[in-house]
Parts: sequence; C-alpha cells; structure tokens
Amino acid sequence: MYLRKDVARGVDGTFMWLMEEIGELAAALRHGTQAERAAEFADVLAWLATIANVVEVDLAEAILQKYGRGCPGCGGYVCTCPDAGKP
Amino acid sequence: MYLRKDVARGVDGTFMWLMEEIGELAAALRHGTQAERAAEFADVLAWLATIANVVEVDLAEAILQKYGRGCPGCGGYVCTCPDAGKP
Repeated sequence: MYLRKDVARGVDGTFMWLMEEIGELAAALRHGTQAERAAEFADVLAWLATIANVVEVDLAEAILQKYGRGCPGCGGYVCTCPDAGKP
Repeated sequence: MYLRKDVARGVDGTFMWLMEEIGELAAALRHGTQAERAAEFADVLAWLATIANVVEVDLAEAILQKYGRGCPGCGGYVCTCPDAGKP
C-alpha cells in the first residue's frame, strides 16, 4: 500500500515513523481506550510490515521460520523455558 | 505461547522487551544479513503480538479495521495521499 513512498523515503526515514508510532502505542497503553490501543497496534504493525517490504523480508515467512514450530527455546507451543530466561 | 509469562510480567515489563528487540532490528537493518533481519522482524512482531494479547487487543482484527479497506487517508490499496502527508 505504501511501498513506493517508503522506498523513496528509505529505511532510516521509515524507521523514524515506526518509532513515532511506537511512542503513540506506549501512550495508548497507558491512557487510551481499547479502540485507540487497537488503532496504534495496527499502525505499529503497518510500519513494521512496510519496512520489511522495503528490505525485501517476508514478514509472514519470518515469523513462521522463527516461531512456527513453537518457542525457539523450549519447543513448546506454551513456553516452559525458565522464567529467568530471555522471554 | 508466552501469555502466562507476559501477563505475570505486565505491560510495562513486556514493552521493555519489545524495545530491546526494536534496537536489535535497527542494528540488523544496518549491519545484518537477510536471515538476521528476518529473525529480528519476527521477534519484534512476536513481542508486539504478545503485548496485544496481554491487553486483549486482537491484532489481526485491529489491522483489518484500520487498513482492511485500503489507506485510511485516500482509501486506495496503493496510497495516493500527497507525499507531504503523514505516511
């Protein structure tokens, strides 16, 4: 939807927009309604997807590769890694 | 996959992990291979999804609501908003 503009803007400029939306998401998580939170989550995901498009990473394939067979740590679909571990 | 841990950690603590992954994505965009970039995109999306789960926002529904009918600005599936506009 935004590929032409984002390619013209470049990764750095597009990443700045992602950061702006991350800030708006943080604010919505603190003070927003559920509808405002949902809209900010959508914006963050949209900017993430568009940066992936610019650098030719397939976001759906990336998530399948890393998490499609369960937690990369313990292999479970409900993670049972020690709580002190990374996630 | 990580809901139990993330609920226990809370939104603030989970958001910090998202920020760490955002930093790793920025580094991978600058210096990483395509495989490293893909893995970092997956991590950012995973943390975004898990925060959405914690606050009971349906991420798929959120993106459909905001972008499912095209660009919220111009309505096009290829955005034709003025380049000076927000995205």
